[in-house]
Amino acid sequence: MGDADRYELYYWPGIQGRGELIRLAFEETRTPYIDVGRLPASEGGGVAAIERMRAGTGGGVRPFAPPILKVGDLVLAQTAAILAWLAPRLGLVPDREADRLAAHQHQLTIADLFAEVHDTHHPIAVGLYYEDQRVEAQRRAREFLTERLPRFLDYFEDLLRRNTRGGGQYLIGDRISYVDLSLFQTLSGLAYAFPRAMRRLAPQIPLSSALRDHVAARRHIAVYLASPRRVPFSQHGIFRHYDELDDAAIELPPAGA
Amino acid sequence: MGDADRYELYYWPGIQGRGELIRLAFEETRTPYIDVGRLPASEGGGVAAIERMRAGTGGGVRPFAPPILKVGDLVLAQTAAILAWLAPRLGLVPDREADRLAAHQHQLTIADLFAEVHDTHHPIAVGLYYEDQRVEAQRRAREFLTERLPRFLDYFEDLLRRNTRGGGQYLIGDRISYVDLSLFQTLSGLAYAFPRAMRRLAPQIPLSSALRDHVAARRHIAVYLASPRRVPFSQHGIFRHYDELDDAAIELPPAGA
Repeated sequence: MGDADRYELYYWPGIQGRGELIRLAFEETRTPYIDVGRLPASEGGGVAAIERMRAGTGGGVRPFAPPILKVGDLVLAQTAAILAWLAPRLGLVPDREADRLAAHQHQLTIADLFAEVHDTHHPIAVGLYYEDQRVEAQRRAREFLTERLPRFLDYFEDLLRRNTRGGGQYLIGDRISYVDLSLFQTLSGLAYAFPRAMRRLAPQIPLSSALRDHVAARRHIAVYLASPRRVPFSQHGIFRHYDELDDAAIELPPAGA
Repeated sequence: MGDADRYELYYWPGIQGRGELIRLAFEETRTPYIDVGRLPASEGGGVAAIERMRAGTGGGVRPFAPPILKVGDLVLAQTAAILAWLAPRLGLVPDREADRLAAHQHQLTIADLFAEVHDTHHPIAVGLYYEDQRVEAQRRAREFLTERLPRFLDYFEDLLRRNTRGGGQYLIGDRISYVDLSLFQTLSGLAYAFPRAMRRLAPQIPLSSALRDHVAARRHIAVYLASPRRVPFSQHGIFRHYDELDDAAIELPPAGA
């Protein structure tokens, strides 16, 4: 593989974040890629390389924020746009246009959910510390866990139920797609951030829970998750665990209310 | 035009919201479309029709939220996905793949900006009234107007500056695209919601301001904006004007800080 078709991912080195949705697509398909942010600066990597791309001095269309994929002359940002472009090349989405449109639509809904998860710990400003927005975070997390999260989870569960071609195992068609990998990542992150809330909601989402376990057990994904390439969840990514934001620490409405 | 290729837009009837980005694409190209949410219930329209689609009983892939486009058997949600599908059919994006990818990427960045604008007045929960999150809204609006908004605006201004093919007038290529229409809508909404902040920032974005004026003056868009089809901005959409969230009501850091 020459430079012209080498996959270069530019994403913050220390977190899973949105970049993980792209890493999972590469890892499931064992596609070689360069995780540029994790290369040493002496090899042209690190945060400085990401900042060059963001400043528009790395070639191609200037991106607003990582993740950024560079393949030859193409520079593409926005996670869902990257995956929509990449998935057909990796065999991670069916050929039918209707399936590809559905996959992209679902991926964008996952992106919306990611943004809402992020805002549970940063409801005021991404540039402020969590400690400077703790009170607001508790209010927002309560609303998220009682109103928004059940709505998103019920929706994806219903998609799995409706996709009879997939036998309840896949969101699109009858085999794994990048959207399944992203739903796995979403559910894994939620279980890390909100273990009590996710135990409460688990009975509502049997198919989603099974999908999460199936994906985790896939051969190449299992190898990846056990490898040092998989950065652990932490207090620096989208999914953060603050005990005071989870169920029991927040006031829940009475059951059935 | 038969039913099979009739464009049906499902969006909340009383607001511009995200649906407006799709309406503008239809209006610029004088493409006939049915704004189903604004039809009377007796003709199968109104909010009930939108709710049927959300519930997944309107056919096609179940969407999470409006806007939703229905064209024959296709049911597609997520504004940026709808526009990426629609724009080639309406002649609102160049043919080159690189241009289409850039357009989609920029549209997704506009979607991110929309979400941040929405959260200035709803930082805690979409399901709560503004009055129940006023204090948090003031904090969030301050951060938005001082940190985030300048970053977004500088970015789009830079894209216009860099697109030498477009002579500073177009984000993509050398003619109008759907992303220009969406940037027009964004700047119009911001001027409505934050008139003082936008006057402060205007000197930084001459090309963007000119683009907004050019788009407003385009023949079909001007007709649309003057028509009853253009719902006015209000306190119910994404862009809302609360005087207490604009510059002067919030504490700004000293110039140059």
